[in-house]
Formats: sequence, structure tokens, C-alpha cells
Amino acid sequence: MKLAELAELLGCVLVGDGSVEVTGLSGIEEAKEGDLSFVVHSRYFPCLATTKAAAVIVHHNAPSCPRPTLRTDNPYLAFAKALSCLYPRLIPSFGVHPSAILGPGVHLGEGVSIGALCYLGKEVEIGEGTTIYPQVYVGEGSKIGARCLIYPQVTIREGVILGDRVIVHCGAVIGSDGFGYARDADGRYFKIPQVGGVLVEDEVEIGANVTIDRATLGLTRIGRGTKIDNLVQIAHNVVIGQDTVIVAQVGIAGSAKVGDRVTLAGQVGVVDHVEIGDDSTVGPQSGVAQSLPPKSVVMGSPAIPHQTWKRIVLSLPKILELLKTLRRLEDRMGRFEEKGGGDDRRE
Amino acid sequence: MKLAELAELLGCVLVGDGSVEVTGLSGIEEAKEGDLSFVVHSRYFPCLATTKAAAVIVHHNAPSCPRPTLRTDNPYLAFAKALSCLYPRLIPSFGVHPSAILGPGVHLGEGVSIGALCYLGKEVEIGEGTTIYPQVYVGEGSKIGARCLIYPQVTIREGVILGDRVIVHCGAVIGSDGFGYARDADGRYFKIPQVGGVLVEDEVEIGANVTIDRATLGLTRIGRGTKIDNLVQIAHNVVIGQDTVIVAQVGIAGSAKVGDRVTLAGQVGVVDHVEIGDDSTVGPQSGVAQSLPPKSVVMGSPAIPHQTWKRIVLSLPKILELLKTLRRLEDRMGRFEEKGGGDDRRE
Amino acid sequence: MKLAELAELLGCVLVGDGSVEVTGLSGIEEAKEGDLSFVVHSRYFPCLATTKAAAVIVHHNAPSCPRPTLRTDNPYLAFAKALSCLYPRLIPSFGVHPSAILGPGVHLGEGVSIGALCYLGKEVEIGEGTTIYPQVYVGEGSKIGARCLIYPQVTIREGVILGDRVIVHCGAVIGSDGFGYARDADGRYFKIPQVGGVLVEDEVEIGANVTIDRATLGLTRIGRGTKIDNLVQIAHNVVIGQDTVIVAQVGIAGSAKVGDRVTLAGQVGVVDHVEIGDDSTVGPQSGVAQSLPPKSVVMGSPAIPHQTWKRIVLSLPKILELLKTLRRLEDRMGRFEEKGGGDDRRE
Repeated sequence: MKLAELAELLGCVLVGDGSVEVTGLSGIEEAKEGDLSFVVHSRYFPCLATTKAAAVIVHHNAPSCPRPTLRTDNPYLAFAKALSCLYPRLIPSFGVHPSAILGPGVHLGEGVSIGALCYLGKEVEIGEGTTIYPQVYVGEGSKIGARCLIYPQVTIREGVILGDRVIVHCGAVIGSDGFGYARDADGRYFKIPQVGGVLVEDEVEIGANVTIDRATLGLTRIGRGTKIDNLVQIAHNVVIGQDTVIVAQVGIAGSAKVGDRVTLAGQVGVVDHVEIGDDSTVGPQSGVAQSLPPKSVVMGSPAIPHQTWKRIVLSLPKILELLKTLRRLEDRMGRFEEKGGGDDRRE
Repeated sequence: MKLAELAELLGCVLVGDGSVEVTGLSGIEEAKEGDLSFVVHSRYFPCLATTKAAAVIVHHNAPSCPRPTLRTDNPYLAFAKALSCLYPRLIPSFGVHPSAILGPGVHLGEGVSIGALCYLGKEVEIGEGTTIYPQVYVGEGSKIGARCLIYPQVTIREGVILGDRVIVHCGAVIGSDGFGYARDADGRYFKIPQVGGVLVEDEVEIGANVTIDRATLGLTRIGRGTKIDNLVQIAHNVVIGQDTVIVAQVGIAGSAKVGDRVTLAGQVGVVDHVEIGDDSTVGPQSGVAQSLPPKSVVMGSPAIPHQTWKRIVLSLPKILELLKTLRRLEDRMGRFEEKGGGDDRRE
Repeated sequence: MKLAELAELLGCVLVGDGSVEVTGLSGIEEAKEGDLSFVVHSRYFPCLATTKAAAVIVHHNAPSCPRPTLRTDNPYLAFAKALSCLYPRLIPSFGVHPSAILGPGVHLGEGVSIGALCYLGKEVEIGEGTTIYPQVYVGEGSKIGARCLIYPQVTIREGVILGDRVIVHCGAVIGSDGFGYARDADGRYFKIPQVGGVLVEDEVEIGANVTIDRATLGLTRIGRGTKIDNLVQIAHNVVIGQDTVIVAQVGIAGSAKVGDRVTLAGQVGVVDHVEIGDDSTVGPQSGVAQSLPPKSVVMGSPAIPHQTWKRIVLSLPKILELLKTLRRLEDRMGRFEEKGGGDDRRE
């Protein structure tokens, strides 16, 4: 693709020779002839002088570069879009494979692909242009929107609704039973039937081997544009807002509410029934044990404001020293009191 | 269903009009006409006066309510049972789907359902009334008891025994190899064959994408009535007692023993070979690094008694202040010693 | 098997009667007639005198034993090898099951077994002697080496390369999309196409329900002989060295590098872009937030040198006492200052 053409597609300002042909994309240090590259962080600015890339995407304010450059307000976004242009995802439209098993009353929109060895229960609905890879299960009455991508071996149980342009990665389970029991007089657990469903809104992405439980009553909800990484657990009746990012191995307990534009870093735990306000950030491995107001930035288990956490972590190694100092001070005090005949009331 | 009929089924005392028709169940604040609701915590008692519910389940000691009430010792259990009455789970008996593949010598009890695209190895035995959903794998010689529910895409490897009324959710793996290696002189790992099995007793429930490893020799065991949430890891030769609750993303390392009626909260880790006594509770994200006596209540990583943990966590933010106070005190002491001509031996 | 024969196979020195027949293997305390047993730790030496085992594997330096013994430098390795001799894994060669679906251009080496209900995409290559269990998915163009074992319900997406003698356990996903987005001006996330692949070298073992993401560009790499336990998450562009051990539920974020012979204990988290030097050990539940030099031994979240961590953890309970002591000391000082007419400048 000619650089000038790409500049137009990405809405970037072209500086230099637009007739250059770009055929691939790579990091600024590995880039070779024909590659388009990009620099976001200023620490890579020195590479601009020496890169072998055919062209580079940079911010408007980046230093000049001997190679042709595409200048933009958001070089990372331009890089992402360049990737989609140079490596367009070809999703084969393969129709309904003869080995797929479809229950009565299944409704498929135009251009739907159903892979080999899939099972779609009674009255499942699949929106137009959606691709379902092999060996997927969709339970009775569940609805999948338009232009979704459902990767191999996903399980979507009955009573689940997915919006449009949703992506679900391999091995994910949507609609498993919530974990709820009532204890009887003998200390045994009686299973609380989980009769609710799951609603996943448009443009959500769900990682590999994620588990999302159905609600006890009502719905477990994932808001529009939210992105969920691999091996995340979302319990029954959890409600997650829009454009929220949930990194791998996070666990969110029952009925918790997570706001819009929140970031939960890897391995975070959120206890049941708490609320995390919009635009909050929770650092990795933290444990959210109580509700957080909007724009919180917390860390630790239990999670506390990030600045406090940092100061505590830095001061922890001083405890050992502290203990010694204190003991010395007590000695000095003791000696002084003895000698000076100070107050005799000692504890 | 008439309220009087439900009262009888649940063993509750009916107060008020038993001819009321209940058609659904919901929370006390969302309840609308026709709904049965329930109140467990006293903070919801005020709702009793204003709820739109057709009837309410409460404890014998709860305040009176203008609506018909069902009174009981255990309102949460009655609610769970009411759910099963009002939303009875209809498990379709679909026989053996023609696309399922059964090895030689497979034995199916009466009323067994085997879903589409299942694979059952040689000499597998399935007890009466058990339902196996589509795309399940059961390895050679494994035995599944009566009235079990095996959800789609579960994998049960060879040499696994499941009791009666066991529920296994989508994507769970039972009987994968334990993680064991012997290091050779060159630092390479030699795989220790994992030739044991897994025994899952009656009424156990196993969550979505859980992994339970087979024993090296002997058995990995899960005791009767134990409930395991999603994404839990149970290593080889672990032994878990009865009526124990294991919340999502817990990991239990090799040969650990967990007692009866234990609760392991979310994301807990248990190191190998330790023993957790009966009736213990381990708080979320805790790490159990040594054996715990019965009735322990622990928290933190490494886990310590919950009360101590709480006091430490509350005092941590004071370290910063402590450091300052200590420094000031040293100064005061120093000045005093200089002035008062105290002991000259200073450190 | 005769003990003398086993001694030769394992390269052990036989002490005692080599004509003894061994038929099974078990722990030193449970061993019964016909069993071979082993003792590694000295705490089990007393059992040598009383064991009912037919024969015992011990170190050259272990005390003598009334039973026939096999003596060696590495009794644990000899035990592992004895297990393989006494319980040889019989992997049935079942050919290509008629229900398996193979795309055009699939190439199968000699002696390959493809289980029931598998799906192999276009141009997949499978090396000689490899066994693929039922219900596995292998995407277009992926290559699996010789003598591999792929357990049921594994998903290997397109563009993945596995070396020889690789073992992949049930439910593992290899090649799912990396988790990468660029944020646009409205705060919405634009998906960064993940167009790279995954390279898994020889003799790697991958646990049940593990997820390994494909690279954005280039390759996610797992080095020769590395062993990965269940439910581990490996993000895009991660590079892992050789003979490294990664215990259950570890999460490694994007572009992190883990060296050779590293041990990551259970539930460890590693942030993106850090480097962990060769021969390092990271304790359970730790969070590696910055790069570690070779031979590091760290613990905690954030991870610090293990010795420091241990001293801090031991001193934490003393904080409470510290606070009290400090307060008392301030009082004593105050009284002293008042009485002695010391420095009046108090804070």
C-alpha cells in the first residue's frame, strides 16, 4: 500500500515521500525495508534517526525523522488502524457446516457462518454476518447479534443475549450457574436455582476461558465496549459499565457493580455487593473490599488510595530499623530517668 | 401457585390470606404484583411496610407486615426452596443423540440422556437419570453416578469416579495430569507419570472451567456436598472434606488436606502438604502457608488469625506517622541529654 | 518385574535380593507386599526399618534397610522412572476417527491418531506418532510436531507451531488474541489486530485450561522443556526460556521475558515488559513489578528479596506493640521535660 493512501485512511498528516510502498508493520528497532513503524514514547525518539523503517507514525510534536512520517494526535491509535489496513482479517464465510446440529426453530440472519460440530439449541437466533467457529455450544433460546465472532469451543448457555459486534474467545463460558446456596439446619448446602440470564452489550470482547455466571434472578450485565481479558471470573448479578477494561484473572464477586471507563488490572479481586465508581483504576493483585467513589486510584489488598499504599510499601523495610531505634531510645530514657531521678512512675 | 400450597411445601407458618396467587420471585424492593419476596437482613425490615410483593418470606421474629407472610426459622433456605418450586428446572430427557459416539462396553442406566457430539470411551458407566449435555468427553472406564448433570464441553478423563447428584459446569476438566517432575543432573525435568485417579463424592458441584488433577498414585478426593466455584485449581492428591465451600479462582497445591465445612474465599492459595482443620474460614486472596487447627479464621498472605491481620492492616498507615514521631523523640532526647549532662554513651 | 531388571533400567545399585518381584509403587508408609517404595527426605529414614515394601529406592547415603534396596544419586528421579516402567502409558493408536473433520491439504505423519469429533483446518501439519484426543480444534496452517499428546477439547488456533514431544492438557487454548486496544478521543477502545503467532518448543507441557495469547506482531514463545501448570495466563509477546516451571494460576503480562530455569510459584503475577533473570525463584502469590537479575529469590506483592520479605512479615505483628511503646515513651519524655525544665520547644 502506498504511504499516501494509508495517510488518508488513517487521517494522518504525511511528511515526506508518499509514494513509498509499505508492506508490513513492526517495532521501531526491528523494522526493516518496507515496514511501517511507530513511536509513542519519547524514549524511542533517538531511534527515529537510525531506523530502517520505510516510514514512521509519530505524534505531531515528535522530533523530525529522515524517513517519511505520518503525523497525528494519537499515534498508538493510528498504528492500530494501520495494522487493520495492512493485515485485514479475512473471516471466511463458510455457511452452515453439514456436521453442525441445529435445533428446531433456529433463526440465522443473512451471511451467518456456523462451523463444524457446533450445537445450537431450540430457537437460537444468530444475527446477520456473525461467524461461529467449530465446536461451539449455544443453548436454547439464546440470541447472538450481528457481525459477532464466536471462536471455537465457546459455551453459551440458554437465556443469554449478546449484542452486535461481540467477540468471544475460545473456551469462554457464558451463562453458567451463579454460586449460591442456602445452608440448612444440618450445615448442608441447598442449591439456590439460578434462573436469571446474562446480557452482553455491543462491542464487548470476552477473553479465552473466561466465566460469566447467569443471575439468580434478573440479569448479569456487561456494558457496551467493555473488554475482558483471559481467565476472568464474573459472578451472578454483577453489573459492569461501558468501556471498562478487565485484565486477566480478575475475579468479581456476586452483585458487585463496576462503573464506566474503569480499569481493573490483572488478578484483582472485588468482593460481593460493592460498587466501583466510574473512571476508577485498581492496581494489579489488589482486593477491593468496599465501595469506591468515582475516579478512585487504589492498590493493595485490601485496596487503599494508591499514594498511601506506595508510601506504606516504601516504609515497610524501615520497620526493622524502627524497632531497633525504639529499643535504643528506651534504654537511653531508662538510663536518664535512673540517673536524673526523674518521675518514678514507670510502666 | 396458591400461597397456602407453597407454605406447606416449604414448611412455613402462613400469616394472612393463603389464597393469594404467587407467580414469580424477586427482591423486596423490586417486587411487583404476583411476586413472592423475602427479607433476611433487618436493614430491609422497613421495606416490609411498603413492598408491592404479593407475599413475603420472613423469620419468625421479623416485624409484622401488611402483606401475607410465610414465617420460618431459615428464610433464606425457604426462599431457595420457593425458587425451585416456582421455577422448576425442566431437564429434557433426550435419550442418546445419534451424533454421540460411544465406545464398546459403555453402560447407561435407565433414563440417561447423552447429548449431541459427546464422546464416551470404552466401558464408561453412567448412572440412571443422569443428563450429559452436548460435546462432553468421558474417558475410558470412568464412572458417573445417578441423577448427575454434566454441562456442555466438560472433560472427564479416564479413571475418574463421580458419585450421585453431582453437577459439573461447562468447561471443567476432571482428571488432568498432576504437575510433578523430577529434575535430572542437567536441570531438565522428567515427567512423573500420574497414574492415580479422582473421586468426587455425592452432591458435589463443580464450577465452570475448574481443573481437578488426578493423583500421582491413589486418589484426589472431593468430599460429599462440597461446592466449588468457577476457575478453581485442585492439584494432585488433594483431599477435600464434606460440605466445604471453595470460592472462585482458589488454588490448592498438591497433597493439601482441607477439612469439613471449611470456607475458602475467592483467590485463596493453599500451599502443598498443609492441612486446614474443619470449620475453618480463610478470607479472600489469603495464602495458607502452614497447617491450621479446626475453627481457624485467617486472613492475609501469609495467612494469620483474622483479628491480628485486621489490627495490622489498620495500623499500617500509622507507620509513616510513627517514623516521624520517633525521629522527633530522638531529637528531644538528644537535646535533653546534652543539656542535662546525662549519660554520655550515645549511639 | 524383577527388581534386578528394574535396577538395570534405572541405573541403580542393587543391594539385596534381585529376584524379588515388584508389581506396583507406593509411599513408604502405605507400601504393601509387592510394592516398590522410595525415601527422599531424611525424616522418613525411620520408616526404612519397618516398611512392608518389597524393595525401596534410596540415596547412596541413606541408612541401611532390611529390605532389598536400589541405591542412586537421585532417588526422586529413579522413582519417577520406576513409575514409567511399572505403569507404562499405553497410548492407543486409533488412526483417524471417521467423525473427525479434516480440511484440505492437511498433512499427517506416520502413526498419527486423530480422535473423534476433531476439527483440523486447512493445511494443518501433524508430526509422526502424535496423538490427538477427541474434540480438539486445530486452526488453519498450524503445525504440531512428532510424538505430541494433545488431550481432549484443546483449542489451537491458526498460526501456532508446536515442537516435538509437547503435551497439551484438556481445555487449554493456544493462540487466542492478545489483549491490546488503542483508546480514541471519545474514550472508546479500538482493537489492535493480533496478527502474530505462538511458538512452543520441544518437550513443553501445558496444563488444563491454560491460555496462551498470540503475539500482536512476531511470536509469543515458550522455550524447550518448560512446564506450565493449570489455569496459567500467558499474554501476547511473552518470551519464556527453557526448563522453567510455572505453577498454577500464574499470570504473565504482555511482552514480559522469563529466563531459563526460573520457578514461578502458584498465583504469581508478572507485569508487562519486565525481565526475570535465569535461575530466579518467585514465591507464591507474589507480584513481580520490576525486572529481576539472574538468581533472584523474591516474595511479596510487590516482590522484594525473600529474606527482607520474611523479616518484614515477622516484624509486622510488632507494629501494634511499637505504637504502644512509642506512646509510653513520649509520655515519659514529656513528664521528664516538664519536671527537669528541659528544652521548651515542643512539637
